[in-house]
Amino acid sequence: MDTPYRLHYAPDNASLIVRLALEELGQPYATVLVNRATREQDSAAYRVLNPAGLIPVLETPDGAVFETGAILLWLADRHGALAPAPGDPARGDMLKWLFFVSNTLHPALRISFYPDRYIGSDAAAQARLRAHMQGEIARHLDTLESAAGDLPALFDGAAPTVIGLYLGPVLRWLALYPEAETGWFDLNRWPRLHALTAALETRASTAAAIAAEGLGPAPFTAPQPPDPPEGSAT
Amino acid sequence: MDTPYRLHYAPDNASLIVRLALEELGQPYATVLVNRATREQDSAAYRVLNPAGLIPVLETPDGAVFETGAILLWLADRHGALAPAPGDPARGDMLKWLFFVSNTLHPALRISFYPDRYIGSDAAAQARLRAHMQGEIARHLDTLESAAGDLPALFDGAAPTVIGLYLGPVLRWLALYPEAETGWFDLNRWPRLHALTAALETRASTAAAIAAEGLGPAPFTAPQPPDPPEGSAT
Repeated sequence: MDTPYRLHYAPDNASLIVRLALEELGQPYATVLVNRATREQDSAAYRVLNPAGLIPVLETPDGAVFETGAILLWLADRHGALAPAPGDPARGDMLKWLFFVSNTLHPALRISFYPDRYIGSDAAAQARLRAHMQGEIARHLDTLESAAGDLPALFDGAAPTVIGLYLGPVLRWLALYPEAETGWFDLNRWPRLHALTAALETRASTAAAIAAEGLGPAPFTAPQPPDPPEGSAT
Repeated sequence: MDTPYRLHYAPDNASLIVRLALEELGQPYATVLVNRATREQDSAAYRVLNPAGLIPVLETPDGAVFETGAILLWLADRHGALAPAPGDPARGDMLKWLFFVSNTLHPALRISFYPDRYIGSDAAAQARLRAHMQGEIARHLDTLESAAGDLPALFDGAAPTVIGLYLGPVLRWLALYPEAETGWFDLNRWPRLHALTAALETRASTAAAIAAEGLGPAPFTAPQPPDPPEGSAT
């Protein structure tokens, strides 16, 4: 590789989180577009990199790393930034909220976006499942809003950590997806999370992501559907 | 605290994973039983430790840590065991599979055990959701079985890492819960995972967990419902 890192990405997908981290770290990286329209992430070649068939993958000098949370943590530890180091008294706080976002908040989005994959074609059951998950997501955001009050440095968008870099895109997606099913979501309900995303929008990392993935001028506080220069978000 | 660690636990709950880790590390710890029958995990006192109201919490000299994956990783890094250290070329492999187990496999169990919480009282919809998740879980175990072939050290039950300590209890619960809905599960379908759990059962850590939580003689390869000396598993 000409650069140490190669990010397998699709516009406005979870790879956006990793792009923001690489930009914040100032690390050079190449990108490889994964064609979601042909489900390239299910191809044999892609599954060599990630047998779970999910975007993103980050190829590193130590091999391919996948799972957004794992990549974030690996990069933070490798470059000594974006997270308290092992041994730092704040390490546990970072880890517990990173896992919470990764295993509680993020999977709840997936179910609410694609209830048909879980419950089949019964529209009423889909609506019930989606409504339940939206309630769960709101509860998780309440929990995170409270944590942001207790741990301002961890949730600071102006000096972002792995937590803020993960939350910015997640809050964007809640405002955008699924189309016509986002009326319940209002970021103003969570003022500390709103402030986090507003500060994140002032970062050069966000400007780079906007340019690369066509995210519009205020991708976290006033999201618009993406208009990417290459590839498609869905 | 008289000991550096205090584990808030319920028998045969996710806290079992953390107990195994503390035993493997040889760290002294106190336990605090969380009364699930009265939903003590929802109490104001408990939510000070974990605002998400979930078991386990590990109180440490650096404060309370929650989320099973976060606690495992924090302990591994603090004590320099159970996982490749930051900087080790195998670090990324450990992180990606730890996050996969935490955010993909483990949440799938929760949905399949409690479909009513997601889809309400419609029995047919519950059955569809459960069946879907059981299929997903089998697919995830296929993925892990393959990974165990590629990364034998990471999935070695005789010298367990955070991955094996997480998987042993998860595979136990799949054989036990929910009662009368486990017929689909046969650990022999995944021979490397079976071997991992068989080796895990030879560890002193497992013997300590059996005694503390009433898990029976072969808690991973031939699970029996728990008969804990204190508290209840449900």
